[in-house]
Amino acid sequence: MQQATRTTEEEILRLVRDHDPSTVGVYEQCRYHLGLDGSTGVSGKRMRPLLGLLAYASITGDHRAALPGAAAVELGHNFSLVHDDIEDGDSERRHRPTLWSLHGIPQAINTGDMLFSLSRIALHRLTDLGFSDRKVLRLMRLYDETCVALCEGQYIDIATSEADEVMSVELYFDMIGRKTAALIAASIEAGALLATDDEHVIARYRAFGWALGIAFQVNDDLLGIWGEEQATGKEPTDVARRKKTLPVIYAFEHAGHDDRARLAALYEPKSPSEAAVREIVAILERTGARDYTRTQAQLHRDRALAELDAAGVVLPDARARLEEIIVRVISA
Amino acid sequence: MQQATRTTEEEILRLVRDHDPSTVGVYEQCRYHLGLDGSTGVSGKRMRPLLGLLAYASITGDHRAALPGAAAVELGHNFSLVHDDIEDGDSERRHRPTLWSLHGIPQAINTGDMLFSLSRIALHRLTDLGFSDRKVLRLMRLYDETCVALCEGQYIDIATSEADEVMSVELYFDMIGRKTAALIAASIEAGALLATDDEHVIARYRAFGWALGIAFQVNDDLLGIWGEEQATGKEPTDVARRKKTLPVIYAFEHAGHDDRARLAALYEPKSPSEAAVREIVAILERTGARDYTRTQAQLHRDRALAELDAAGVVLPDARARLEEIIVRVISA
Repeated sequence: MQQATRTTEEEILRLVRDHDPSTVGVYEQCRYHLGLDGSTGVSGKRMRPLLGLLAYASITGDHRAALPGAAAVELGHNFSLVHDDIEDGDSERRHRPTLWSLHGIPQAINTGDMLFSLSRIALHRLTDLGFSDRKVLRLMRLYDETCVALCEGQYIDIATSEADEVMSVELYFDMIGRKTAALIAASIEAGALLATDDEHVIARYRAFGWALGIAFQVNDDLLGIWGEEQATGKEPTDVARRKKTLPVIYAFEHAGHDDRARLAALYEPKSPSEAAVREIVAILERTGARDYTRTQAQLHRDRALAELDAAGVVLPDARARLEEIIVRVISA
Repeated sequence: MQQATRTTEEEILRLVRDHDPSTVGVYEQCRYHLGLDGSTGVSGKRMRPLLGLLAYASITGDHRAALPGAAAVELGHNFSLVHDDIEDGDSERRHRPTLWSLHGIPQAINTGDMLFSLSRIALHRLTDLGFSDRKVLRLMRLYDETCVALCEGQYIDIATSEADEVMSVELYFDMIGRKTAALIAASIEAGALLATDDEHVIARYRAFGWALGIAFQVNDDLLGIWGEEQATGKEPTDVARRKKTLPVIYAFEHAGHDDRARLAALYEPKSPSEAAVREIVAILERTGARDYTRTQAQLHRDRALAELDAAGVVLPDARARLEEIIVRVISA
């Protein structure tokens, strides 16, 4: 898998190399954000491209021809991160200053747009690798529809975070479907699409990816409150940062009258005290939010694996590597 | 031409219609920015799609099959406007509040991304209209490379506007080539590409569009200082707003020592007084910046028309309408 990650990064580096002296700066910004500027340990997990490459390899036995698709997915994911960081006002990502906090909002918006544009350029190399025009176009349509879904999900996220009311559990799943599951599903569907013409197999891989994407986000929400820092590399700070993730949304919907009123009061201040954080977590556990969230992550992870088995073509070696990733990212 | 504009707007409206109740807001924002929300007189000139449609019609005799390309170009142009308005801090466009000043920067960044995504979706309808996969893919590559150029141009624009030094005339032409001419050239090249397989004709149309794009921007810079409001609908406020457009850049490069020092001093304050504006304009005229800028606009406009003639296939009716637009937008 390290091999697949390295070749994906080489594929991306070709796209963000310098062209003309007058435009070096914008490519430097791209490389910085992608963690491809020579720094170490700042590049992100590359989970999305890896899943796509493994999906392709699980049908064909080799991942290499799918590299342009993997590069597109990773560039597209990173375009959305650059813009998310501005939209959320986050000044750090992967222990480094975010692009906007280094270069200002105008340059960061534009560099996000550049990463988006380059993600499209990545896909054209599939033609050079011998994929039919029909296949490349179908992949592009999948990618374009996924980008629309991403923006729809982000719209819901911003709108609900600015609203007074906490969103419903139903709207939460609607949102993460568009914002998170769509790109993970597209990456895996793209891998299958490039590997086979069998529509049954393609549909199963898509369903696998969708369920995995939901499981991934729900599990992320679980770890954001109850994760162990040494296991995840992230501090469980979602409550202190007042993020309305699934456990909180569930608790607001299912808590009794008194607990709901108390939760609302505790979420009022901009930064809750340590005592308030402890009390919030206690209410979440009392209302069953932790169990519910863990169960949802497990349920979607199991559904993902069942869809993969239903596809019926998976090579054993690739299947083992897919399971390894799934177990690693979904620890619920 | 009103017919072509109306059908382009119908093509765009299909793409920005409401889908699901949870995402209505983001499509409302798209329609608002595009001036397709029922308001009148706020929709922009639709110059770019119109040029593409006329290029197509000038070879085939009818514009309709090129509508998806026209919609893509207009959506792409408007994505860049939404982000430009944030990057420049502009609170008004076409006499209405800009998207970010109504909905905040986070939503406006995301709605710009949505317009970008939808511009790609627009192109897929070319397949339904019977264009070959090869042709559609070539058009997409042209569009994707144009978006990269747009972001490169925008990078130069932001970087130089934040710098202490005024950019060189050479860098100015480099910048507007990417930021303005590339999309106008792509729109016209796309029209030709869809209409014919003759590479000579396609190349001439591209060169026509490129020269026209340069002429358009240079002329815009001229009008920004010496335009008549009644003729252009815009106030000539570039000097008062301290914009470093071609006449100013030329003057900084060619003025004598005293005039240059005086210009630098006059451009120091955030908002120059009316007397300072008059003195700046006098220096620009004295250093020949006005004549130089007018000559450059005329030179590129004439080159554009010569390229169009060199293509040698233009139907007389479409040629007349193209000239009409060119004369209307480039009054130098």
